Amino acid sequence: MRKHYDVIIVGGGVIGSSIAYFLRRHTPYNVLVLERNKIGSEASSAAAGMLGAQAEIHEAGPLYEMARQSRQLFPELSYELKEISGVDMEWVDKGLFKTAKDSCEAERLQDLAAFHRANGQPAEWMDVDELCKKEPNASAELAGALFLPKDGQVNAPKLTQAYAQAAVKLGADFMEYTEAVGFEFAQLGTGVQTSAGTFYGEKLVLASGVWTGRLAAQTGLHMPVFPVKGECLSLNFMEPVITSSIISKDCYLVPKQGGRLVIGATMRTGTYDRKVTAEAVGQLLEGAIKVVPGIRNGEWEKAWSGFRPQTPDGLPYMGKHPNHSNIYFAAGHFRNGILLSPITGQWITELVCGRKEEQSLNEFAPERFVLEQMKG
Amino acid sequence: MRKHYDVIIVGGGVIGSSIAYFLRRHTPYNVLVLERNKIGSEASSAAAGMLGAQAEIHEAGPLYEMARQSRQLFPELSYELKEISGVDMEWVDKGLFKTAKDSCEAERLQDLAAFHRANGQPAEWMDVDELCKKEPNASAELAGALFLPKDGQVNAPKLTQAYAQAAVKLGADFMEYTEAVGFEFAQLGTGVQTSAGTFYGEKLVLASGVWTGRLAAQTGLHMPVFPVKGECLSLNFMEPVITSSIISKDCYLVPKQGGRLVIGATMRTGTYDRKVTAEAVGQLLEGAIKVVPGIRNGEWEKAWSGFRPQTPDGLPYMGKHPNHSNIYFAAGHFRNGILLSPITGQWITELVCGRKEEQSLNEFAPERFVLEQMKG
Amino acid sequence: MRKHYDVIIVGGGVIGSSIAYFLRRHTPYNVLVLERNKIGSEASSAAAGMLGAQAEIHEAGPLYEMARQSRQLFPELSYELKEISGVDMEWVDKGLFKTAKDSCEAERLQDLAAFHRANGQPAEWMDVDELCKKEPNASAELAGALFLPKDGQVNAPKLTQAYAQAAVKLGADFMEYTEAVGFEFAQLGTGVQTSAGTFYGEKLVLASGVWTGRLAAQTGLHMPVFPVKGECLSLNFMEPVITSSIISKDCYLVPKQGGRLVIGATMRTGTYDRKVTAEAVGQLLEGAIKVVPGIRNGEWEKAWSGFRPQTPDGLPYMGKHPNHSNIYFAAGHFRNGILLSPITGQWITELVCGRKEEQSLNEFAPERFVLEQMKG
Amino acid sequence: MRKHYDVIIVGGGVIGSSIAYFLRRHTPYNVLVLERNKIGSEASSAAAGMLGAQAEIHEAGPLYEMARQSRQLFPELSYELKEISGVDMEWVDKGLFKTAKDSCEAERLQDLAAFHRANGQPAEWMDVDELCKKEPNASAELAGALFLPKDGQVNAPKLTQAYAQAAVKLGADFMEYTEAVGFEFAQLGTGVQTSAGTFYGEKLVLASGVWTGRLAAQTGLHMPVFPVKGECLSLNFMEPVITSSIISKDCYLVPKQGGRLVIGATMRTGTYDRKVTAEAVGQLLEGAIKVVPGIRNGEWEKAWSGFRPQTPDGLPYMGKHPNHSNIYFAAGHFRNGILLSPITGQWITELVCGRKEEQSLNEFAPERFVLEQMKG
Repeated sequence: MRKHYDVIIVGGGVIGSSIAYFLRRHTPYNVLVLERNKIGSEASSAAAGMLGAQAEIHEAGPLYEMARQSRQLFPELSYELKEISGVDMEWVDKGLFKTAKDSCEAERLQDLAAFHRANGQPAEWMDVDELCKKEPNASAELAGALFLPKDGQVNAPKLTQAYAQAAVKLGADFMEYTEAVGFEFAQLGTGVQTSAGTFYGEKLVLASGVWTGRLAAQTGLHMPVFPVKGECLSLNFMEPVITSSIISKDCYLVPKQGGRLVIGATMRTGTYDRKVTAEAVGQLLEGAIKVVPGIRNGEWEKAWSGFRPQTPDGLPYMGKHPNHSNIYFAAGHFRNGILLSPITGQWITELVCGRKEEQSLNEFAPERFVLEQMKG
Repeated sequence: MRKHYDVIIVGGGVIGSSIAYFLRRHTPYNVLVLERNKIGSEASSAAAGMLGAQAEIHEAGPLYEMARQSRQLFPELSYELKEISGVDMEWVDKGLFKTAKDSCEAERLQDLAAFHRANGQPAEWMDVDELCKKEPNASAELAGALFLPKDGQVNAPKLTQAYAQAAVKLGADFMEYTEAVGFEFAQLGTGVQTSAGTFYGEKLVLASGVWTGRLAAQTGLHMPVFPVKGECLSLNFMEPVITSSIISKDCYLVPKQGGRLVIGATMRTGTYDRKVTAEAVGQLLEGAIKVVPGIRNGEWEKAWSGFRPQTPDGLPYMGKHPNHSNIYFAAGHFRNGILLSPITGQWITELVCGRKEEQSLNEFAPERFVLEQMKG
Repeated sequence: MRKHYDVIIVGGGVIGSSIAYFLRRHTPYNVLVLERNKIGSEASSAAAGMLGAQAEIHEAGPLYEMARQSRQLFPELSYELKEISGVDMEWVDKGLFKTAKDSCEAERLQDLAAFHRANGQPAEWMDVDELCKKEPNASAELAGALFLPKDGQVNAPKLTQAYAQAAVKLGADFMEYTEAVGFEFAQLGTGVQTSAGTFYGEKLVLASGVWTGRLAAQTGLHMPVFPVKGECLSLNFMEPVITSSIISKDCYLVPKQGGRLVIGATMRTGTYDRKVTAEAVGQLLEGAIKVVPGIRNGEWEKAWSGFRPQTPDGLPYMGKHPNHSNIYFAAGHFRNGILLSPITGQWITELVCGRKEEQSLNEFAPERFVLEQMKG
Repeated sequence: MRKHYDVIIVGGGVIGSSIAYFLRRHTPYNVLVLERNKIGSEASSAAAGMLGAQAEIHEAGPLYEMARQSRQLFPELSYELKEISGVDMEWVDKGLFKTAKDSCEAERLQDLAAFHRANGQPAEWMDVDELCKKEPNASAELAGALFLPKDGQVNAPKLTQAYAQAAVKLGADFMEYTEAVGFEFAQLGTGVQTSAGTFYGEKLVLASGVWTGRLAAQTGLHMPVFPVKGECLSLNFMEPVITSSIISKDCYLVPKQGGRLVIGATMRTGTYDRKVTAEAVGQLLEGAIKVVPGIRNGEWEKAWSGFRPQTPDGLPYMGKHPNHSNIYFAAGHFRNGILLSPITGQWITELVCGRKEEQSLNEFAPERFVLEQMKG
């Protein structure tokens, strides 16, 4: 195993794997990905895989723009990664409904439709009859739904695997079960101390999800990331109950291949406790049955949890370390890591190559909370 | 593998395994147990393991008597099976609460307490304060509980394993993955046609739980058994939430070793569909949280189902075939197979040896629904 | 749930699901599939998914012809089922190697190459250098390999799911956990007695794999089917070790998406014992490491078994019941059920519609062993 | 949740849980155990549970003595923990065989027998006939075996659970999913910074197995601990194949309740890679079948791995921090953590209370490699 690389990526989740893929695809750099556990074993496999560029982001700004751009990359990426890696990310473009349970919610969603249209994005309000025409199992008690035709979904674990396998195929090295525990600032690039020895990278990309804050601290940077636990469960149906993803106030429902349905997700802030609680299971099921009553007949499959990496302002960190010009960050994507993975991979690759202006990512700057800390 | 046995038992659940154990313990007969799947893989492992001799039976009669006698056998049996097989059935004698959610239920349970005491069995009514003194996590909203100090519990899969391993140790043969598909009435005992050839037994015991009715039909006997599906789930707690088992109207809670809690069980009649539904999970959790609110923090483990073998009058079948004097039945124990397994093993052993009068089991006679069918 | 159908298929494996799909695709018949367990839960999921039209069949005859035709259907079927069902069968057309470990085996395989070419099928002998150029991880100790470029592979559980989901989408009904236990020959079609009541079909198709012989016996037909247990295991690799499937004398290796490798399969005749033995695991690993030494570093995933349905002459049963003109059989596909599933679905559909001459399937006639039995 | 404790134990494996138990049993200290994952989720559950006081230690010295004393504690501890916690550790005292495959190994083992007897410990040489009388399934090809009648075994995960549950019952607090990431040397005891905030302990005990070296470094102490990966697998038998544990040169075999057999363990030094390799599985099976040929028919259950915490001189660390008089270590038990857990729990408790002289543990001193490092 070689010890020196052009680029070392710390973190083999959907973000790190995407960056590895884009780097190998578009640059001659040799690349090593260090992953503490197995590829895609944390938030990246816990995710339901919605591409909610409009569903998840409700205000204009850099994230809205970035999300739209990233969503756009999926059709081609899906084809490309299948070709290279053999892995199908199960990309589906059947749109997404946000349901309203009463007139108050309906009004809010109609405003949202207007907002999206004003921003040039399709968004259609449907009353309950129209909704039930498209999703016959939706509850007749609903007050209608906002339909977002461009918000699709993928199989999140498969997407991560597709990135990683494609990167491997293109020559990247991946080391699983290899935890980065410290750094060594040497002349020949930066050393990453791991449980399997020290590896040296000309450049480093730290993409360790919710654990990136801790690594940043070891490089002397205050870059806060908080865990927001999400609990999910899945059911199986002989005949799929829904075709498009559905989001209500209480939960979301994402239909997968073969009649499988993923129901998510709770939001518990500030804990690393992995357990799926009885309460979470009960609430998710109750919420889901309200939206699609036929869910009560689904066959229980399993439950799981993951930790979304949250930042104080809701924007991810993407950019250079203020003091170490060869260290980059790509973390803090919160609920949108799957959706934002292609554009993140692309932008970080451009940044690392010097093809992208740092300023263009100003809003995502890793050091944006440093001052605040000093004041605080 | 030999082909002729003194006794062949069809069914390697808790009943068949108990009979094999008692036969090897108290008779010189050589014994073969035929099991379609693995030992204890159906209702016997799905059971929560309550020994609800008083909790489950609310009227005087042969079942009440039988259940009391069987419960009494556990302390010694627990010791004995551990000695012989090395397997601990995890017998616990911490009693059982039946909780009342309102005054109406409370009254009913007080009547029940009186009934049990009239029958010489201990039963104590406790108001909610007393209950919460014994079970501090019980809901303060409850209207009290009936305490049955003698109703204990065991680990049902371990009990079956203990019987089977002890029987093996004492010389019984067990064939797993061997389905009985038909019979051959020959001179040298009865042949049991299986997927692994035909085996001949001087005597047969059919103990196949809910599938016994179908086998009986193949011997020309109408002996109806109906499936009643039960769905269960389990949670884990670092600190056990309850000490005794608790039964409410909606569910029961059985605390297992190491902070594990089993919550059961639904009742769905007439189906062999194994799936655990979303609805069942939701209802069990809701019911359990009402009785012990702290359950909401439990860690989800898993969910499963099993089929209780029900009979038209609620009594099991135990006795001889009306037309084949060498065929015996032991099936239809409904919700009480775990509890009744020792006495069933003992009685069938005595019957097979001729040490027990057939008439003593009249109420459990396998042919008791034949006439009805002819009229019907 | 309706009780009368045009066609009832007994068995929801890859064969029954394929027939359901082709029937709904090409006829107006309403269709019910009865499955004892879950869809695709037996041999269909145990299979490694090789499409060994040439690798598995070494002599001219109806099976060779049928296999070639069936293999040809996959490219379009793969596209079509993905479109309709959303499920990707992961069809891969990277060919298949049969390796020789010494000159004796090499000679035999060169003869085989000649045979295939004589029959108009591509087949290329490669010495070990050529082999290692295409599969760099193959052992340099091998004596070469026969390359069959047209023999591909699919994900067997996904294929079954794709058929079933597509059939559901096109209107077929599937009942899982519903065992067919007997027949009722009535005026309004034939009744299938199940654990969920009796269903009537104008026509029946019995497609229950290794259990079809027993059902045939209940219709008065001697149609022998024997179980041949196969044990398999799977490993994971960060970087895939092989690209094409490889068959040696001892085992076969089938590379799946994402670096997964399936290694199969033992052949144990005449048992229904599901257990995977220590010996099987040891032998498969030893055999596989001989062919591709790098396999020793693979990560253990799991082991499983399945029962191939074998017939006395190695040909499947496809055709009409000799005495009941509305009962059809499609079973006994042995090691080739995955490969033969499309053509079987197509032919049975044509037969049921009267669009195919019965005589064209003479060699596969279900009654072909009846006479033999009478003599025997 | 309180924030200040008398004693905080970092690590909820068998060592940390034992210490928590002994502390609560024998002192009035309030106790918190911090566990990164779940209780007993690392080496403690991977262990086969042999109590090889004589089998594992072949030379006189402090470890030999300590192991003997610890082994002696099990009978009573087993009873006591069952009483308090309800959890049965499945302690078995059927002895242990070390088999010789040839005369050379036989000679070595006979010398070992002499050594043990000279040290007052029973040890008996048996030729192959005697061995096969006691273990009829042992291979007749063996050259005999050394029998160590006092070396028993327990169920390792259950032992850890028994300690933890008993400690909880006696008032200890356990926090799972709570990783210690740093220390804070304050006036009010030492702070342990965790993913769930900082907790303060008058005294700390670091008992984090193979990860203790890294924590020690954070307190300024060089205390090397190396991982030695062990891979294991388990099989099931309807009838147990052996009664006592058996150790050969290649592997060990430990019979568990209900016909389960654990086969271990490889030794791979210096890696944290958790994967169980194909090679390991193959070698363990091959080794095991050589000793007990009937193992080939066992039913595959599963495979797993764990990391033994090794120290440069093979002795565990037990004692005080050289510079922080309120920090204690208990780690580095290598292959003997299960066996040594009671005595470790006892000694550390005595040390923490001041009831044990520090000097008595001189050979286990945490700082014994500091000087060496300074020289090195």
